[in-house]
Amino acid sequence: MNYGLIVKILGKIMVTLGLFMSTSLIFCVAYQENLINYLAFAIPSGITIILGLILNNIKPQTNKIGIKEGSIIAGLTWIVSALFGCMPLLISGSLPNFFDAFFEIVSGFTTTGASVCTDVEGLAHSIKFWRSFTHWIGGMGILVFVLAFIPESKDGSAVHILRAESPGPQVGRLVSRMQASSRILYLIYIVMTLILILLLWLGPDTKMNFFNSLIYSLGTAGTGGFAIHSTGLEFFLPYTQYVIAIFMLLFGVNFTLYYLILIGNIKTTLMNEELRWYIAIVVIAVTIITINIFSIYQNFEYSFRQALFQVASIISTTGYSSIDFNLWPSLSKTVIIILMVSGAMAGSTAGGVKVTRINLLTKSSVIKVKNIMSPRKVEVLTQDGKPISSKTIESIQSFFIIYIIVFIICTLLISIDNFSIETNITASLSCISNIGPGLGEVGPYGSFAGYSNFSKFILSIEMIAGRLELFPLLTLFSPKTWKRNV
Amino acid sequence: MNYGLIVKILGKIMVTLGLFMSTSLIFCVAYQENLINYLAFAIPSGITIILGLILNNIKPQTNKIGIKEGSIIAGLTWIVSALFGCMPLLISGSLPNFFDAFFEIVSGFTTTGASVCTDVEGLAHSIKFWRSFTHWIGGMGILVFVLAFIPESKDGSAVHILRAESPGPQVGRLVSRMQASSRILYLIYIVMTLILILLLWLGPDTKMNFFNSLIYSLGTAGTGGFAIHSTGLEFFLPYTQYVIAIFMLLFGVNFTLYYLILIGNIKTTLMNEELRWYIAIVVIAVTIITINIFSIYQNFEYSFRQALFQVASIISTTGYSSIDFNLWPSLSKTVIIILMVSGAMAGSTAGGVKVTRINLLTKSSVIKVKNIMSPRKVEVLTQDGKPISSKTIESIQSFFIIYIIVFIICTLLISIDNFSIETNITASLSCISNIGPGLGEVGPYGSFAGYSNFSKFILSIEMIAGRLELFPLLTLFSPKTWKRNV
Repeated sequence: MNYGLIVKILGKIMVTLGLFMSTSLIFCVAYQENLINYLAFAIPSGITIILGLILNNIKPQTNKIGIKEGSIIAGLTWIVSALFGCMPLLISGSLPNFFDAFFEIVSGFTTTGASVCTDVEGLAHSIKFWRSFTHWIGGMGILVFVLAFIPESKDGSAVHILRAESPGPQVGRLVSRMQASSRILYLIYIVMTLILILLLWLGPDTKMNFFNSLIYSLGTAGTGGFAIHSTGLEFFLPYTQYVIAIFMLLFGVNFTLYYLILIGNIKTTLMNEELRWYIAIVVIAVTIITINIFSIYQNFEYSFRQALFQVASIISTTGYSSIDFNLWPSLSKTVIIILMVSGAMAGSTAGGVKVTRINLLTKSSVIKVKNIMSPRKVEVLTQDGKPISSKTIESIQSFFIIYIIVFIICTLLISIDNFSIETNITASLSCISNIGPGLGEVGPYGSFAGYSNFSKFILSIEMIAGRLELFPLLTLFSPKTWKRNV
Repeated sequence: MNYGLIVKILGKIMVTLGLFMSTSLIFCVAYQENLINYLAFAIPSGITIILGLILNNIKPQTNKIGIKEGSIIAGLTWIVSALFGCMPLLISGSLPNFFDAFFEIVSGFTTTGASVCTDVEGLAHSIKFWRSFTHWIGGMGILVFVLAFIPESKDGSAVHILRAESPGPQVGRLVSRMQASSRILYLIYIVMTLILILLLWLGPDTKMNFFNSLIYSLGTAGTGGFAIHSTGLEFFLPYTQYVIAIFMLLFGVNFTLYYLILIGNIKTTLMNEELRWYIAIVVIAVTIITINIFSIYQNFEYSFRQALFQVASIISTTGYSSIDFNLWPSLSKTVIIILMVSGAMAGSTAGGVKVTRINLLTKSSVIKVKNIMSPRKVEVLTQDGKPISSKTIESIQSFFIIYIIVFIICTLLISIDNFSIETNITASLSCISNIGPGLGEVGPYGSFAGYSNFSKFILSIEMIAGRLELFPLLTLFSPKTWKRNV
């Protein structure tokens, strides 16, 4: 195990994290906040930067790094980010309980958006910004940022780290140099976020001042979902709701496709099988829900808009709400729960199982049934016209089964708190898929505040596990990882 | 496709079914029931027997039979049994709606025990008997019965049929002749049922007269669960509750193990890995629930007995209740839901995913995580000390994923009825795992009567799919099966 390099990279990450954190001070100044808020950001960002610089000075014996080290770095990055990132919430007194602050900031970095704040509107602007900024950082991955923008002697070493930090746009295949492709993806991310800020700020909605536009854009881009209004986006103009709905869907698309469009390869993009499935799922879900809720609202445009917004919000795993869908009929709620499992496209900022896996799981099941009928005729599983190896399928099946096992265990553990079955199941599902709201007590207008510290901690771990797509975190906590010479 | 033989075997099954049905006439006589009840059994059993005899006269060109024919026979057997078996309920007027009667008898044959009767205590004795008798027939499988006791020229042809009708004790490996081993298993089943009848009838419980002892024994043996008291077994003596709890667990054990004990091979039985997991799951579940519900009842023996009874009832997929566990805390309810997925041992009369699959799914996931950490070290998956091929694992993973896909689709379809999410999820889970009760509206003291005809039909199909372990039914409904020369 190359401990030296692990520590060194962690150092770089901490410096970056500290610098990110310090940007909140701008809002302390702009909104003339209390001294405590200045300290809440200055102290932890100072500590993080200084500690980071010290760790960065370590000279590793080699620059070699394997998949195991990659997993550990990815896992530790999220834990370190959460521990240091929650300090402003603690110090400012916004969330004085450690487990609350930890949950909230894990929810931020993992782009979940589940909140334990019972009064989000009462938070200081600097705190509101920091929460939402963690979404934006987490959406693309702080590790990708570090590897993309900080000069590194060897490109090769980054490959395993990026593989381990699996969600977030897949890099490495676009252009020959890893760092270059990370930068391209980050630039696409930044430009799309800026366009969204402008569309909201310059749009007709008077409630969308610059600050609100910034906050909601950061949350949309990272597919996070922390709202700063207790009723979410319910009382915003239809214009705002449509713009955010469309951008939630856009941030659920594999970023590689945007790169392909940029270099003029539109045909490949349109032929992409995962994109077609993604669009099909959205269209089907919106249609079912629109018809189902039309009986309540008796207004087609309104029903369609609510359906579109909620479907976009859940499938992209953002979790904003424009309405309390807790009050919807069961059919619509069931569709929402199914979308919670699916998530959006791989290589986007979204969480969940991902459409490409759903596609392969479905197709492999169909082939399985066909093979049982005609054992002599072997059918090959393909995606985008290319054959998929049985090893890949087996890997995806294992992923899905581990996803379910982790989901079941976490649901069991949090059920000690005695909330309803609906609340517990959707809370756990929402956290593992990094969505935010669930149903029942943790519905769009509810919060996770009622859970015990124990449950909040379990759900925090579940969010990180979901964000890392399970394997790296499991590796991190396995005793075998830490044995020498294995 | 060997249509001739398919039809011929179906004929034999219909004759057997008709004879089984006619036994209910004994109860019409014994309890001096109305003429309509005599007709309700005499007419359909007459029709079934005559039709069966006609079909049995067909001379197939060959006696060859493949896995496809086996799947078709297994699927058709359940459908024919359900269609003819529900006639007594229709004719007698006990359940005059076709979808109700179909649901009820499918629930019987599939050993689910979910009921749409709102007044079970008001049913005639002959009807009560027929419902519970279908549990007993379905538990072992009517097909196994036919193959075990009706002289057949070629033993070999039965293999594929028995493989297709997957639940129920696995035959074929015990002794060299298929028919002989089916008979042994059926005899074990009959003897165990008789012992249970005697234990209940001769026990201290005055409510357990001969008829009640018979009914509850048939339901326990088949792991069915139709009760004939609206409060289930709540107001029976602790003796009765313990006896039934223990027998529910015993009928959840792989019958092959009983055969091994009979021939003196006790060591192999005790070393059986699935048995150990089964016992471990029961012990853990009973412990958690006992502690959890002790806070309500403040009586250790009572809490333990309720926990034991409900755990035995759910894991064996019987579905009897000794209490309304709808009122339990969330933790206990979550344990119950998890047991609903697991089910008992393969080769028992129980439904569900089965402990052996849970065992292999868990172990393969652990190995998967280990392999990611140390890619060079390949770990082999074993069960009972023997290596398990990757093909078997892949097959089990596919099974589990198809199980989840079918569960999700059925849950979505029945959610049109707008019951609560908890009700719909547990109703669907209960049906696919052939348990009976769920939570909420379909809780132990509720019924499925509130669902629409459409939902009842979907749930009926789900019960059959679950009972056949999915594949044969999917095969039956696939257009490819019916194409020539495939």
